[in-house]
Amino acid sequence: MISIGIDLGGTNIAVGAVDASGRIIASGSIKTRAERPYQSVVRDMAHAGLSVLKKAGIPLEEVRSIGVGIPGIAVKETGVVVFCTNLGWNNIPLRDELNRYIDKPVYIDNDATVAGYAESVAGVSAGTRSSVFLTLGTGVGGGIIIDGKPWSGPHGVASEIGHLTLVVDGEPCTCGKLGCLERYCSATAVGRIAIEVLKDHPESSLFALYKDSPSRINAKSVFDAARRGDTAALHAFDQYIKYLSLAINTIISFLDPEIIVLGGGVSRAGDFLLNAVREQLPKYLMFKSMPYSRIETAKLGSEAGIIGAAMLTS
Amino acid sequence: MISIGIDLGGTNIAVGAVDASGRIIASGSIKTRAERPYQSVVRDMAHAGLSVLKKAGIPLEEVRSIGVGIPGIAVKETGVVVFCTNLGWNNIPLRDELNRYIDKPVYIDNDATVAGYAESVAGVSAGTRSSVFLTLGTGVGGGIIIDGKPWSGPHGVASEIGHLTLVVDGEPCTCGKLGCLERYCSATAVGRIAIEVLKDHPESSLFALYKDSPSRINAKSVFDAARRGDTAALHAFDQYIKYLSLAINTIISFLDPEIIVLGGGVSRAGDFLLNAVREQLPKYLMFKSMPYSRIETAKLGSEAGIIGAAMLTS
Repeated sequence: MISIGIDLGGTNIAVGAVDASGRIIASGSIKTRAERPYQSVVRDMAHAGLSVLKKAGIPLEEVRSIGVGIPGIAVKETGVVVFCTNLGWNNIPLRDELNRYIDKPVYIDNDATVAGYAESVAGVSAGTRSSVFLTLGTGVGGGIIIDGKPWSGPHGVASEIGHLTLVVDGEPCTCGKLGCLERYCSATAVGRIAIEVLKDHPESSLFALYKDSPSRINAKSVFDAARRGDTAALHAFDQYIKYLSLAINTIISFLDPEIIVLGGGVSRAGDFLLNAVREQLPKYLMFKSMPYSRIETAKLGSEAGIIGAAMLTS
Repeated sequence: MISIGIDLGGTNIAVGAVDASGRIIASGSIKTRAERPYQSVVRDMAHAGLSVLKKAGIPLEEVRSIGVGIPGIAVKETGVVVFCTNLGWNNIPLRDELNRYIDKPVYIDNDATVAGYAESVAGVSAGTRSSVFLTLGTGVGGGIIIDGKPWSGPHGVASEIGHLTLVVDGEPCTCGKLGCLERYCSATAVGRIAIEVLKDHPESSLFALYKDSPSRINAKSVFDAARRGDTAALHAFDQYIKYLSLAINTIISFLDPEIIVLGGGVSRAGDFLLNAVREQLPKYLMFKSMPYSRIETAKLGSEAGIIGAAMLTS
């Protein structure tokens, strides 16, 4: 059987026809143009889905389901998208609207949950029964897999790991609260931490960049400088790894999954990131002498959204 | 069918014969005397189990299993207790040792997990499929129920909520780390927070007690003074409720259970505690306008340990 997987983003909608093993048979992408009425966006999603089926030569009868990963919160029972901030969606009947075009079961879940599920089916966590996925990007998203299935909680708000408090009364978050984990563990946070450090380090190779265009002090420039041995960048990197290790300890102390998968922009640092986390993490663990969750980086990249959405079931 | 439930504590061992609905048919209690070799303690556990069966007139053939709640970490597959700090146990083959006396399946889990499971079967969270239990006592323990079953994680260290970091570089914890949640959310923490506050409040009704015997500044004396409207006690109480609300937000943002159950000594404050938590919590939640986890206090009290242990299955 084939499923249609849709990765609904604020900028692009990626769509794929995916087989039962998580292999993408055909895929395509269109602009979201989120400023339009939701009906137009959903019509484009459906048409893009039908178009990849055609491209792959798959008749509609062979399609099991449509899965959608959304950057927000949905209610499983009703197929309604409750919040989707960067699309400006509130209480949108996504399932019913999609069913106007394609009469198949529609499953909707959060994009980070969907990406984590994809990794657990066809990626780095394949074969495990419990995993937590962290997207370390502009913000921090989370996906929880328990007993081989995505866990979104009875109210659909589970795995919002980016918005648990990491620092009491800390940095203001875009969500209106203080000290949220994503203020300290996102790619954005790497830049902020580095800018703080650079103020006192005129000798740093990043100091000129910081003075001229501080917006270019980001995860990539900081990690690159740290790799080159720049003292200030290494100091910022160490601070970031400490926060990330504290976040990982929260995941381990709470849920103790088999594996924790780091995804998103920061994870592109690969072994440089992993080695540092694996080295610092034990300092923050209670049971460091016992076996604990493996830490790995994501494998599927941008295709995870399509694959995981297609794998969703009731 | 009947199961034997054993609540193994550092001071007492409570044992009960429990029916399938979670009702205790007969029970008893003996001293642990943990300074003895573990073999003697386990022999006493087995004899106490056989003795409650006799008391209830239940033949061994009607017994399904023996369940044990331990103040530590066990590995399910092997029945070995890995850590049990206040009994001084390390790598104790509890299942095999119990089976020398009673040849029935033995299931072992953490005491807070077991108590949370009991509440979800026969207590305040009966009928729910997902819950998190917090024991707010000398320390803070946690129990996680997902899909109606206790979740202890593949390495057995899940739900150690007391040792996730609530305050970065905060108070030293007995576990050797800094800023653990239990330093801020336990009954012990209420006393510590109040003592800090009382230093600057000679007008408080608790000031004399604080000067003469600061060890008697505890959750009960502070909550009692707060109820009477003592300003310093109310200030300490508010600080405590803030930390507890942050901890509850972590649980909601992470796992989004149907219900969060507060147990342990602090929970005896009942509605005084609940009303304060329910009022402050929304400040720390991301999705406060959506339905979220109910917060309740535990119902089963000290019997939860026996009941939950008896309910354990593979």
